[in-house]
Amino acid sequence: MTTDLDIARAATLRPITDIAARAGIPADALYAYGPHKAKIGYDFINGCAGRPDGKLVLVTGISPTAAGEGKTTTTVGLADALSAAGKRVMICLREPSLGPSFGMKGGATGGGYAQVVPMEDINLHFTGDFHAITSANNLLAAMIDNHLYWGNSLGIDTRRVTWRRALDMNDRALRSIINSIGGGANGAPREDGFDITVASEVMAVFCLARDLDDLQARLGRMVVATRRDGSAVTAADLKADGAMAVLLREAFQPNLVQTLEGTPALVHGGPFANIAHGCNSVMATRLGLKLADVVVTEAGFGADLGAEKFIDIKCRSAGLAPGCAVIVATVRALKMHGGVAKGALGTENVAAVQRGMANLARHIENMRKFGIPVVVGLNRFTSDTEAEFAAVRDATAALGVRTVLCTHWADGGAGAAELAQVVTEALGEGAQAKPLYPADLPLAEKIRTIARDIYRARDIDIAPAAAKRLSQFEAAGHAGLPVCIAKTQYSFSADPTAMGAPEGHVLPVREVRLSAGAGFVVAICGEIMTMPGLPKVPAAETIRLDAEGNIQGLF
Amino acid sequence: MTTDLDIARAATLRPITDIAARAGIPADALYAYGPHKAKIGYDFINGCAGRPDGKLVLVTGISPTAAGEGKTTTTVGLADALSAAGKRVMICLREPSLGPSFGMKGGATGGGYAQVVPMEDINLHFTGDFHAITSANNLLAAMIDNHLYWGNSLGIDTRRVTWRRALDMNDRALRSIINSIGGGANGAPREDGFDITVASEVMAVFCLARDLDDLQARLGRMVVATRRDGSAVTAADLKADGAMAVLLREAFQPNLVQTLEGTPALVHGGPFANIAHGCNSVMATRLGLKLADVVVTEAGFGADLGAEKFIDIKCRSAGLAPGCAVIVATVRALKMHGGVAKGALGTENVAAVQRGMANLARHIENMRKFGIPVVVGLNRFTSDTEAEFAAVRDATAALGVRTVLCTHWADGGAGAAELAQVVTEALGEGAQAKPLYPADLPLAEKIRTIARDIYRARDIDIAPAAAKRLSQFEAAGHAGLPVCIAKTQYSFSADPTAMGAPEGHVLPVREVRLSAGAGFVVAICGEIMTMPGLPKVPAAETIRLDAEGNIQGLF
Repeated sequence: MTTDLDIARAATLRPITDIAARAGIPADALYAYGPHKAKIGYDFINGCAGRPDGKLVLVTGISPTAAGEGKTTTTVGLADALSAAGKRVMICLREPSLGPSFGMKGGATGGGYAQVVPMEDINLHFTGDFHAITSANNLLAAMIDNHLYWGNSLGIDTRRVTWRRALDMNDRALRSIINSIGGGANGAPREDGFDITVASEVMAVFCLARDLDDLQARLGRMVVATRRDGSAVTAADLKADGAMAVLLREAFQPNLVQTLEGTPALVHGGPFANIAHGCNSVMATRLGLKLADVVVTEAGFGADLGAEKFIDIKCRSAGLAPGCAVIVATVRALKMHGGVAKGALGTENVAAVQRGMANLARHIENMRKFGIPVVVGLNRFTSDTEAEFAAVRDATAALGVRTVLCTHWADGGAGAAELAQVVTEALGEGAQAKPLYPADLPLAEKIRTIARDIYRARDIDIAPAAAKRLSQFEAAGHAGLPVCIAKTQYSFSADPTAMGAPEGHVLPVREVRLSAGAGFVVAICGEIMTMPGLPKVPAAETIRLDAEGNIQGLF
Repeated sequence: MTTDLDIARAATLRPITDIAARAGIPADALYAYGPHKAKIGYDFINGCAGRPDGKLVLVTGISPTAAGEGKTTTTVGLADALSAAGKRVMICLREPSLGPSFGMKGGATGGGYAQVVPMEDINLHFTGDFHAITSANNLLAAMIDNHLYWGNSLGIDTRRVTWRRALDMNDRALRSIINSIGGGANGAPREDGFDITVASEVMAVFCLARDLDDLQARLGRMVVATRRDGSAVTAADLKADGAMAVLLREAFQPNLVQTLEGTPALVHGGPFANIAHGCNSVMATRLGLKLADVVVTEAGFGADLGAEKFIDIKCRSAGLAPGCAVIVATVRALKMHGGVAKGALGTENVAAVQRGMANLARHIENMRKFGIPVVVGLNRFTSDTEAEFAAVRDATAALGVRTVLCTHWADGGAGAAELAQVVTEALGEGAQAKPLYPADLPLAEKIRTIARDIYRARDIDIAPAAAKRLSQFEAAGHAGLPVCIAKTQYSFSADPTAMGAPEGHVLPVREVRLSAGAGFVVAICGEIMTMPGLPKVPAAETIRLDAEGNIQGLF
């Protein structure tokens, strides 16, 4: 079998200077990382400020299966197709996390003939951005405990240090720890823990900051602990913001790579899509819009989570407005939403597809609430049948939405040529994207609005302690922040097994957290894992170097 | 005052391709990290194998003051001077650790007009090598706890997991922790802790491996835990070696940078000089010898520790032999060894210098035991006087050793021109460097030989448990390994306050550890800190970005 890695390795990559030239970036604006990766310098970025913006296409999806429906491949295939049609195109994607590569096999750079490359590099250390974010996170943590050690002049309540440490590794043993044991020279023991780096607020800040000044300011606003009187202690109170910004200075410049077909791609930042907003950096998206006619970007999870956060958090903060949304769907996932068990998804079942359309239809309705034209990209699998495709086409046509069958995985950009054409038409409609709720709505009402209008919940059920915290956040001046819902991606509800288009449910808000630097309030609805574990037989066991020093077993 | 950073920033750096050309490295062998840093590719390195070797100069020092005596500046100044004299020269240095930059001010790239640049980059993330080493260390740790979690089929004694986690951060709160708390889903709680990355055995392996094959093999041999029957569990038993090597594949290529005067420098690897051997990578040193007439390299701490380990561990393992050693001394340190208190080191005191010469004289004697010609480089400070210099010159002349006054800090290579000439003469003597002890001596006898011949101890005092461990290491097939002594750098003895040239003391061997992958047995003599803390007012508090986005307050 030809793997994604085989395809990526067989490709002849163009020099990154050629890709940059194609995007209108001069060679002296590049900071190269070998021949096929580069960061783009601040001077060039700042010099682009006065240019007009291109159009923005958001690739999102239906409520996914565990395997994912192919948002990244669709992003890549669509961009390659737009590029082949003569558009100046830029892709904006998240960077993959290193840790999970050693757990389950599989990268996060697309697949088949719709990939960004060099894929091994991008999936491993890439240009070191996540390592810089890890360092910044942990410098702050070290400064907090150092402050406690030397007398705690800020009066931190040591029971209420909320800042956690981070590693880009799947390591369940670090989820919850007691630190500072072994005697007074190591400090006083307290409960602590590690999150995977993508779950760090530093990652969210990195992805929402508009420039270096904004980065340093947001880092300073991050709340790390509480005093006995309930007042917040920030990273700026600890004087950690400056050194953290210094650690991030190089990383904060967007990374340029290419697709297998030579389309330029900015791959930069990668926050979790549950406790954070799940989009690549504002730096990259804004730069892309200055350089291209069309920027194709992706948001994490399904449209209920990813697209909502993209618009209500990222676009609101960065002054962006998508001109079109592509909802990626698969026949397999539709059958799953139509009640078919995992083992039977490869068998034709038109009735199940029709039932499962309830999920896709609701995502379409939701996207329209944001004022954005919608196109459905149906990502073809070999087991799919014409009758099943027809069922999807007919059902979306009834909603006035076009469904385009895509084969970019097998055919590259040529497999998304029709999608590119339909998206181009949709971009011509002159959408007026708008957020779901106004900034001045009370925090609890923001959560209720999302739950009611997007998830179709009957109501929300906020735990009393969480409601009290929301009031405290509002009293402390954070009433104007958007909310970031952390819930399962598998269902519109908080129950991951509720397929299709559930309604009338109640969204339980178990806990709320303030991400004052990133600029949102997180509402946790269900169990959210911020430090994954490794499986019984991790992929790492079969990854190694062969006699020629080449990587084996990765992806 | 002009700082090191001011000088480094004011310098006009040459393109790294020019520096490479000067070293005979073609542009297509470079993997660039921006315009002024590059890794050198495996194909080029392998292609150099058949070339003859240049000569190797070791820069070492007397027992230092806390400020250090200037080994790195002397390495840089000497190389610049040799270069100016027409030699093809390569510098080989360790990479600095990131963590300490945020504690006390000061980088590790030389100083004044004898620096390697770009200094901010080298002192921060550089090319990401230490991040890769951190990741490899922590992947192994995660795989150990994951193995325990899923049933412990290897039968690891969970009380005897010796592998620790690592971070490149000064963080005393992580020295000793309890991991896996919070319930069975997180594993079973056990004592654990973090070392700073430079203290990881992965770092030592990285610096002693001769090629990628050797790297993967050494990683596999690392002992991580013990079974109830006392047998060792290795990284290979956990199948972690391959994935770790994959994480290190890019990092393992030496990094090329330049001095302020354009001399090429390989800055690669940086193990602790106490629990590890304290030298840059074998990969870099061996490559340097293929490219240059003269390679100038440095070993950590004073000659009793650094030079001894350089020869008995690194040179023995890598088949290297230095042709000359430069012992760096300062009048200030000699006065300290002569009994002068810290506050009075700036006042002329010839008698104290003469008394302090006992320390330098012993280092000279010691180096001669290795069969290596010695030159003393006297690193000038402004408060030093001619009479003090004369005292040093006279005393070393009586031993048949030349002392050369050096002003490279203020004058760059021109300030080390005489040193370069004397070193060139010494290299002409055709030294036959040899290790201190044969590989087949029992482990305890190796420790005793070093203690007696180098430290001038009367004897060693091995704790009973340590003696038992040594026997176990021998029984397990490790009898042929060299030993790596971890003791204070401030004295020949294990007492950091015993200045001058103490003798007749007893070296206490408190604990021994096996570094089977690195290939040595560590003998711990005194308190060794493998995870530093931050001071009360860490340097991080004043480090930040200014309005132009430039780094302020670092160094």
